[in-house]
Amino acid sequence: MSNGKPQIVIVGGGFGGVKLAQLFAKENVDITLVDRHNFHLFQPLLYQVSTAVLSTDEIAYPIRSFFRDNKNVNFFMAKAQGVDQERDVLLTNHGEIHYDYLILAAGATTNFFGMKEVEEHSFGMKTIQEALHIRNHVIHEFERASKPYRTPADRKKRMTFVVVGGGPTGVEEAGALTELIAVQKKEFHNLDFNDVQVYLIEATGHLLPMMTEDLQEETVRVLRKKGVNVMLNTQVVGYDGDVLKLKSGAEIPTTTVIWAAGVRAVDMMKNCGGECARDGRIWIEEDLMVRGAVHKNVFAIGDCAAFMHGDMKRPLPTVAPVATQQAVVAHKNIMKLIKGEGGLEKFAYKDLGAMATIGRGKAVVNKPKMTGFFAWCAWMLVHLIRLAGFYTNMTVAFKWTLNFLTSARLGRIVTNIKLGND
Amino acid sequence: MSNGKPQIVIVGGGFGGVKLAQLFAKENVDITLVDRHNFHLFQPLLYQVSTAVLSTDEIAYPIRSFFRDNKNVNFFMAKAQGVDQERDVLLTNHGEIHYDYLILAAGATTNFFGMKEVEEHSFGMKTIQEALHIRNHVIHEFERASKPYRTPADRKKRMTFVVVGGGPTGVEEAGALTELIAVQKKEFHNLDFNDVQVYLIEATGHLLPMMTEDLQEETVRVLRKKGVNVMLNTQVVGYDGDVLKLKSGAEIPTTTVIWAAGVRAVDMMKNCGGECARDGRIWIEEDLMVRGAVHKNVFAIGDCAAFMHGDMKRPLPTVAPVATQQAVVAHKNIMKLIKGEGGLEKFAYKDLGAMATIGRGKAVVNKPKMTGFFAWCAWMLVHLIRLAGFYTNMTVAFKWTLNFLTSARLGRIVTNIKLGND
Repeated sequence: MSNGKPQIVIVGGGFGGVKLAQLFAKENVDITLVDRHNFHLFQPLLYQVSTAVLSTDEIAYPIRSFFRDNKNVNFFMAKAQGVDQERDVLLTNHGEIHYDYLILAAGATTNFFGMKEVEEHSFGMKTIQEALHIRNHVIHEFERASKPYRTPADRKKRMTFVVVGGGPTGVEEAGALTELIAVQKKEFHNLDFNDVQVYLIEATGHLLPMMTEDLQEETVRVLRKKGVNVMLNTQVVGYDGDVLKLKSGAEIPTTTVIWAAGVRAVDMMKNCGGECARDGRIWIEEDLMVRGAVHKNVFAIGDCAAFMHGDMKRPLPTVAPVATQQAVVAHKNIMKLIKGEGGLEKFAYKDLGAMATIGRGKAVVNKPKMTGFFAWCAWMLVHLIRLAGFYTNMTVAFKWTLNFLTSARLGRIVTNIKLGND
Repeated sequence: MSNGKPQIVIVGGGFGGVKLAQLFAKENVDITLVDRHNFHLFQPLLYQVSTAVLSTDEIAYPIRSFFRDNKNVNFFMAKAQGVDQERDVLLTNHGEIHYDYLILAAGATTNFFGMKEVEEHSFGMKTIQEALHIRNHVIHEFERASKPYRTPADRKKRMTFVVVGGGPTGVEEAGALTELIAVQKKEFHNLDFNDVQVYLIEATGHLLPMMTEDLQEETVRVLRKKGVNVMLNTQVVGYDGDVLKLKSGAEIPTTTVIWAAGVRAVDMMKNCGGECARDGRIWIEEDLMVRGAVHKNVFAIGDCAAFMHGDMKRPLPTVAPVATQQAVVAHKNIMKLIKGEGGLEKFAYKDLGAMATIGRGKAVVNKPKMTGFFAWCAWMLVHLIRLAGFYTNMTVAFKWTLNFLTSARLGRIVTNIKLGND
């Protein structure tokens, strides 16, 4: 591909990476977009796959489909492993890729804060595989609990579901779990549903840190009304797959712990020739260039980048709008460098507000402040607009409507049973 | 459950097993339905999952959902392993289940006719897992073929897709593959699609054995027009994952062989205390009772039962109508036995005709004889009617309409990538 055109390499097909490739596609450059998956994942709806509302292919969109009409965009399915800035190459498990300009938009993974035992036994919520594991496991636990040979204690343990982390993911997962359980209740004639417990455990004193206090309290109220046992100021110290241990000394016997308590940058960021923050994010300058970039041609955006400048008091949130807003600035700045223009633009984050749904028909939105049914409609609309593809939009809108009207949960199936040839 | 009511145990939640449980649910009996999966699988549409048209949860319906209002139906998720007829117990991997009457409706699996090497390297088409493996593999092979370091021979091998078996499954799979490939062609800008080949290999001289000769010829014509390389009178003798070997001595280098060339009963049938035919199906009498049943209380229906009586020249086809028609007779006969009535009914199969689709907008139907678009509409209607659940019906009808209008293939994603924690 040494046709003289600048070679732009993008790592990651998330919100930031896809946006960048779309912007560069209109320029006289060649783009290579690298991702270990062939699909763009709409992470904000992962919880709906994990609770059997949506199917995998409704939130996973083939990356190549974005670029049907862009012959200058090349998708390269591979796991990026690091960057050799001296030689201007990206290292992947399918060989090296030369770049003139590189943008790291590799995203984040679950942060277990070094608790290996918890990491081994609990479920993350960042990939489609993890969401499917949760769905298969939760549904399967009901089947296991219904077996006549279970002891009452064993049965109760299998019907106790714990979500750790009071951010949007944890709140949405806990709310959706109670609705899934309500559907299960109609079909397990021999199980006592008084045994079923859903916990939401949060280390700080409030849920949804980005919301105002009254919205936080409203969220707790709605969740408790739905039957979620919300525990604030509660810290998890261990989990062996059987008993969750809290800092207070209390224990919760459970076979299901869903960990939504934190994120960190993916491991490869350590090998990109930059300096990383404590959560693994690579430090970037105000123009989004990686701090100390050898040839001034490596940028980073989104969840994998650590940006803190001016009067900012905390790192930027790991949400899609940060990544897409940074994509716009990174594209502008690289085009300036290509054209030999000076004066790179400085990034400033414009907070568009936050929203979280608390189950069917209820949500909280902070800009403009809304709660209840109207907030939920706003939540649906925003998510539909952001979902990729007309076909996906139609299908998801259709399913949500049916789901709202009928409470159906189509996907309550266990698909990971090991099969022999019979 | 020793409440005095007769205990009916059904093995298998396929078309026959679900129908049986629905019939018995209205009687004063207790029913236990045993399946290793918690869902009823609509096998005729598996090929649509394997070619990214439908999602898994649109053809897999939770078995318990059929019996929400039937408190006398108990679902038991377990792998049935055999029957001890002397003690009237079904053996499963979750313990024994006592029965007063047992009906085996355990279904069929892929028949590789003893070719271990072929079995190891090719894809079956009987389970949801297998359909997903095919989808993931086919889509992944395009990504692998597109890597710049491939040799032309390696690339061509990865873009050669072979379907073995000219029954409905093979015909539908081959037709759907060409359409999937047409979508891929729009998105792989650097691949030469002249390298792509789809083969359909059949050992006999015709496709769709249950159809009339003119419909068979029409099927070959349509498939060839779609670009399928149809090879009749061609026998496969070996496949090592790399090269498919034919009896003629010819070889086809390919990384994808989908085996739809035959079925046999599941292995457990050997351990049910009856006598089995060459394809593993257990021999049953005209009243559907297992031949030589010790206590005259074990029946078998559908794909796992070998029925040949009167002037029949060949075993019954392994299709849903056989199983559901047998379910009706088995239910009647068992109720007669429970009531102490004599004169068990003899089963006679009523052939309702056969249909197969040959890709979008084309099908063949033999009763009444139809081809082309109208046959395809009839095919859609019949399959929608038979699909379980209003919600599923609506979703699938919706997707088929969108698919017909836009050729979209939502599910072209690879979801079985092994992931570390990054």
